[in-house]
Amino acid sequence: MDDTIKSAVLPLSGGMDSATVLAIARSQGYRVHALSFDYGQRNRAELECAAKVAKAQGAVSHVTVKVDLSAFGGSALTGDIPVPKGVGQPAGIPATYVPARNTVFLSLALAYAETLGTGDIFIGVNALDYSGYPDCRPEYIRAYETMANLAVKQAVEGDIRITIHTPLIAMTKARIVGRGIELGVDYSITLSCYDPGPEGLHCGRCAACGLRAKGFAEAGVADSAPRMAYND
Amino acid sequence: MDDTIKSAVLPLSGGMDSATVLAIARSQGYRVHALSFDYGQRNRAELECAAKVAKAQGAVSHVTVKVDLSAFGGSALTGDIPVPKGVGQPAGIPATYVPARNTVFLSLALAYAETLGTGDIFIGVNALDYSGYPDCRPEYIRAYETMANLAVKQAVEGDIRITIHTPLIAMTKARIVGRGIELGVDYSITLSCYDPGPEGLHCGRCAACGLRAKGFAEAGVADSAPRMAYND
Repeated sequence: MDDTIKSAVLPLSGGMDSATVLAIARSQGYRVHALSFDYGQRNRAELECAAKVAKAQGAVSHVTVKVDLSAFGGSALTGDIPVPKGVGQPAGIPATYVPARNTVFLSLALAYAETLGTGDIFIGVNALDYSGYPDCRPEYIRAYETMANLAVKQAVEGDIRITIHTPLIAMTKARIVGRGIELGVDYSITLSCYDPGPEGLHCGRCAACGLRAKGFAEAGVADSAPRMAYND
Repeated sequence: MDDTIKSAVLPLSGGMDSATVLAIARSQGYRVHALSFDYGQRNRAELECAAKVAKAQGAVSHVTVKVDLSAFGGSALTGDIPVPKGVGQPAGIPATYVPARNTVFLSLALAYAETLGTGDIFIGVNALDYSGYPDCRPEYIRAYETMANLAVKQAVEGDIRITIHTPLIAMTKARIVGRGIELGVDYSITLSCYDPGPEGLHCGRCAACGLRAKGFAEAGVADSAPRMAYND
């Protein structure tokens, strides 16, 4: 064990971004408490990957919280809307957007951080290759931080400041991959796909698989994660 | 049915405040979608009261979302910390504070509102008789609203503005009771107690029961909700 005492909470999805953030937070000396969400996502393999990543990258704990977002419907990631595939996807915010997802996840992270007595929350949002989600932008994160510092006991009555750390926010996917490789991230156990095959294989054709492939290609690194064979 | 088309989401607890807000929102012409939270609270009778209130006060729908806050511990309302009773309770934010509770609830309401295509969210927070919770203050609500308008697709790309309506925020408990009585709220089916008896009876001695009793007394109205008999 190292002798640092700073603790942080990290929403951990099982994808490559939050795995990289876990490695970055560890490299900055944080004891990282990983927090995953079972929100009715149809990609169930994601939760198994999150557990593997938490262990492989040295999180001090990993909790999965059930939040039943599927009761609301409204997204291809939780409901019956098909995941868009291939080229020619419509511009703007995609169907895979989950309403208020980062707001819900950060709020649960904020609650968890308070029980741990820390104000440090890391999140793997990315504003460059961000797929059009409004809750990945810097202005959103700043507004969230302002709100959070007015919301919780430890910030309002205590001397803890809530900080939302977003080390990936200005990075390209290629830089994320490069930084992760430097820090020893094992990307073979991460899963980015919106609609993976039955064994948790990447489909290779959704927007998330496309961004991932672009990132590895531009970083000049081979992607070791398993991918489905297809021939259309 | 009336011919209004405005929809709103309301976090509904089963207590007197959110019951009153439901009646106020209805009086303003809103179709109210009530949203309750099963967050591991030890007061389970609260959820049954919420269902009764939603029906009695004319909500168009009522959904209960499970969110497992009890995994975090940290509050007398979800964990093993005893609920403080009687006079001489410590100053400041009490042990019954649930970390980031309104932030978590508003965030789920924000997600639900987006699936309904509305930006109107009502919440029964009260800054006067507020029991010391930081997430009941006007500055918190304003910061939440700012954040929410940067968070969701319908506000960022669409023309819907997120508005957090807090009709009770500057009212005393006595005014809340008075306004509710005017609007026909049936307070006998509401439950305010932090630690009710097995049949959902008010304990009469916790901070929430104290505030409720004060409100009815000052409004000059008898409280018709059932209360435990005790003789100490």
